[in-house]
Amino acid sequence: MILQAISDLVSIAARHGIREAILSPGSRCAPLSIGFIRHPQFHCRTISDERSAGFIAMGMAQQLDRPVVMVCTSGSAAYNYAPSVAEAYFQQIPLLILTADRPPEWIDQWDGQTIRQAGIFGNHVKKSFVLPDSFEHADKVWHLHRIINEAINEANRFPKGPVHVNIPLREPFYPTGGEDVDFSRWVQVIDDTPSRPIFSNTHWDGLAAELNKFQHILIVPGQQKPAPELKLILQEIHQSHRAVVITDLISNLQGTQGIRHPDFLLQTASDREAINPDLIISFGKSILSKALKQYLRSSEAEQWHLQCQGYVPDPFQRLRKVLPVEPIDFLTWFRSCSHTPAKAFASKWNSEESRIREKLPNAMKMADFGEFKAIYHCLAHLPSPSKLHLANSMAVRYASFLSMVPEDVEVIANRGTSGIDGSNSTAVGCALTTKEQVTLITGDLAFFYDRNAFWHNYDVPNLRIIVLNNHAGGIFRLIEGPSRLPELEEFFETKQALTAQSLAMEFNFEYLPVHREDSLLNTLPEFFQHSIRPKIIEVFSSSPENARIIKEIKAGLT
Amino acid sequence: MILQAISDLVSIAARHGIREAILSPGSRCAPLSIGFIRHPQFHCRTISDERSAGFIAMGMAQQLDRPVVMVCTSGSAAYNYAPSVAEAYFQQIPLLILTADRPPEWIDQWDGQTIRQAGIFGNHVKKSFVLPDSFEHADKVWHLHRIINEAINEANRFPKGPVHVNIPLREPFYPTGGEDVDFSRWVQVIDDTPSRPIFSNTHWDGLAAELNKFQHILIVPGQQKPAPELKLILQEIHQSHRAVVITDLISNLQGTQGIRHPDFLLQTASDREAINPDLIISFGKSILSKALKQYLRSSEAEQWHLQCQGYVPDPFQRLRKVLPVEPIDFLTWFRSCSHTPAKAFASKWNSEESRIREKLPNAMKMADFGEFKAIYHCLAHLPSPSKLHLANSMAVRYASFLSMVPEDVEVIANRGTSGIDGSNSTAVGCALTTKEQVTLITGDLAFFYDRNAFWHNYDVPNLRIIVLNNHAGGIFRLIEGPSRLPELEEFFETKQALTAQSLAMEFNFEYLPVHREDSLLNTLPEFFQHSIRPKIIEVFSSSPENARIIKEIKAGLT
Repeated sequence: MILQAISDLVSIAARHGIREAILSPGSRCAPLSIGFIRHPQFHCRTISDERSAGFIAMGMAQQLDRPVVMVCTSGSAAYNYAPSVAEAYFQQIPLLILTADRPPEWIDQWDGQTIRQAGIFGNHVKKSFVLPDSFEHADKVWHLHRIINEAINEANRFPKGPVHVNIPLREPFYPTGGEDVDFSRWVQVIDDTPSRPIFSNTHWDGLAAELNKFQHILIVPGQQKPAPELKLILQEIHQSHRAVVITDLISNLQGTQGIRHPDFLLQTASDREAINPDLIISFGKSILSKALKQYLRSSEAEQWHLQCQGYVPDPFQRLRKVLPVEPIDFLTWFRSCSHTPAKAFASKWNSEESRIREKLPNAMKMADFGEFKAIYHCLAHLPSPSKLHLANSMAVRYASFLSMVPEDVEVIANRGTSGIDGSNSTAVGCALTTKEQVTLITGDLAFFYDRNAFWHNYDVPNLRIIVLNNHAGGIFRLIEGPSRLPELEEFFETKQALTAQSLAMEFNFEYLPVHREDSLLNTLPEFFQHSIRPKIIEVFSSSPENARIIKEIKAGLT
Repeated sequence: MILQAISDLVSIAARHGIREAILSPGSRCAPLSIGFIRHPQFHCRTISDERSAGFIAMGMAQQLDRPVVMVCTSGSAAYNYAPSVAEAYFQQIPLLILTADRPPEWIDQWDGQTIRQAGIFGNHVKKSFVLPDSFEHADKVWHLHRIINEAINEANRFPKGPVHVNIPLREPFYPTGGEDVDFSRWVQVIDDTPSRPIFSNTHWDGLAAELNKFQHILIVPGQQKPAPELKLILQEIHQSHRAVVITDLISNLQGTQGIRHPDFLLQTASDREAINPDLIISFGKSILSKALKQYLRSSEAEQWHLQCQGYVPDPFQRLRKVLPVEPIDFLTWFRSCSHTPAKAFASKWNSEESRIREKLPNAMKMADFGEFKAIYHCLAHLPSPSKLHLANSMAVRYASFLSMVPEDVEVIANRGTSGIDGSNSTAVGCALTTKEQVTLITGDLAFFYDRNAFWHNYDVPNLRIIVLNNHAGGIFRLIEGPSRLPELEEFFETKQALTAQSLAMEFNFEYLPVHREDSLLNTLPEFFQHSIRPKIIEVFSSSPENARIIKEIKAGLT
């Protein structure tokens, strides 16, 4: 009875177009595992550490843009999913999380692997369900069908996100004598048809009138997947000086002519007055550039945010208007509306940007070798098209300072919670979905934190990892506060002794240690060649040196 | 202002007798870290992976029997604590969990490392607090004092457990120019005085009358810390045949004359009718023996549970009476009350136990070498006194089957949630609190799952690890259901290729691989000698062989 009900669940998921499941081992979850393994349309993989399993599933769903199923057994397994669930929630990535559980009567009776799983992910899932624990009554079967449809539709609705279904299961968990699951049985499938919000002409006219109040318009896209059409429109808007487009690294607008060095630019601009916006038009999720965020917070501009529906945050403290339309619809209208901006504003931004672009190559050339320069060279060698994963915290910041990712490279970073806990696994998940090269640039702390990302039996020959090993959390030396404390090294930087060599040996990765600039430059072309196993470049540098170098580079840009 | 408030918090914790803090790196939590580091009475350690940090803190608190402080930064860090928090909750171990957070206005504004932390541990902490986010008003300072006292007192009250304090912090996080924290400032300290519930003589007389209804009394202690006084009383009760005492492995009653092989005994007993109890007297937490648990569930006995206060589970489905007194008070009374039991009952249990004790050595001698025999030899060589950590799932089960732990060895196992996620870290935490040897017996899955347990800069020369490496989750071959499935190896056993050699090299452990019985026997005496670094014995065996051997041993006991 249970096995058939679970096979219905699998059928419904398949009919909603879900194709991938990440399973973690367990006995309580066996009916689920068997269902997904035996269904002809599912591709299943087993990952033992649920923390990594969650981020791998998320890395896959991020690419596929549809839910990936996660299955774990009862007990603390579900809690090991929690870091990836929170990241998926804030990064708006759809996941269908199925946690096996004891039936309700056995909760809190000191049974093994039994915790309080219902609603365990709190406010970090879009919705949380509990399946019925028996299916004698036909309504219970309908209830299961109903819940699974609702869960999948909710995961896919804007903003996408993780949905949790807790599944109480009684023994037997395994098919007995000849019993098999039947995927051909009728199941209820509820389609959720997407729609698109539009404005009336009157509404657009009203907006045009409002827009005329503004002369200094900044367009600030946040984190998003590559969007080629949008990119073309933004390119035109920026070139026509209708607005200044800032191409924050994680907005995936590399290759457009916008402002791509907001960090360096704002830290070194000669006349901040002249670049002050009066209107900020934003869409997408968070931005990476800290200097830009602080600058916008201190501005007197008003912010219009384009988002079809749902909750809108106020990261710059300037939010004034929410426009519930597709960004591309708004920008298509904006590109051709009658608004005439002040040319001087765009010119000033562009000349500041030009200054950085001119001075940066020389500043880099003059700089001593360290992790910053290592990233500079790595970015320059990235294959195109490919995927670039950037780990928190310094790797993604350095890459943002440089902002020189080739046009066909998708930039991915876990900026939902900005944790270091799942960067490796997210990149592994990505590598499982594509034949393109997937490059992860990471610091040593993030890299070793999530080393179980590689503890499984699946090949990711297209994975390339650049580990910036300064044997510590280098960011703490770059922040004013801790860098002067006596406790810096032990308690903030957290000195750690590992190198990636041993890990590379364990998991059969090619390992390329690098201490000098010339050896990095010699290694990089070969590194990105196709291969039958993943490769790691480990760049060694000293944390105090890195701090000095980045300061010198900034000084060279003024 | 923040720094001083936080230093009050640290002062209060110190005055409550808390002495140990496990910190994880971060900037938002810097005021907390600095407070604990600078306080003269705190011993701080930094662990980068919060999942391991949590279990290390728990392993310490388990030994110290007082709260250990955990400090982490904002964002997903807190979620990595969750598996250890759930384990501590169900194992009733006190923890003071301090999570730094953004101030409330910045939640849900796309700021970095910002999730919804308030109440994040759901039903797996005893209580959850949020500190004020500013201290301008004197009442706010009092509120902080009040919350910290309440949190610590709650963690220490029966049943002990984890308590969460979420701490919103605004910049600056670091002391500026000469500023330091002042631990001498007056703080409010609220003492919680323990009391002991007693029964009146009338009540005892009533119990005596009730007791006379029962002739076949089983005493079933659950998981508890070693309790020498209690042990003596139970010994007397068992020897006088007043009741049969079952000494489940995790009840830490090794060395008494009770029934210590319930698993083998119940699986092979000739006349189950004769050993049926009519009364079960229990105390402590869960029991390990699955055979015993199932046997008690199928019995017609009634269960009396001794527990001073709080919620009482019903693991045998026979709970009839909760007796809110100290187990030692009840058992002292029981030892000398006028009740006269049926001698045949105890005799039958004892003769069945004797049968196992007589046959087991020979069955072991005849058995082929595999992980079961490896545990047998390891247990026989354990130094005394020492601590024995047993990982889920097979290590703890095997040890329970054998139940031959020396008297002065404390047995510890994460049976709160019965997860494999923190066994290494719990043993590391234990090793940090004692000079005794701490031996961990673990399977390969649990061992590699929690390898970050060793990723820190603290010495644990007294740690001894025996890894039973069958390159898989061997338990699945021992369960009837999955052992016959075509999906067994890939999806249930989860074949994995690692050995401990590389890990031992990375973390500078002595590494002793063992493939044969004689080499294990040669290695063991040396293995338990004192040393300046931890040691690992890795016992290689095959999962199908292990399954065959345990079946043969069981057959030899009938």
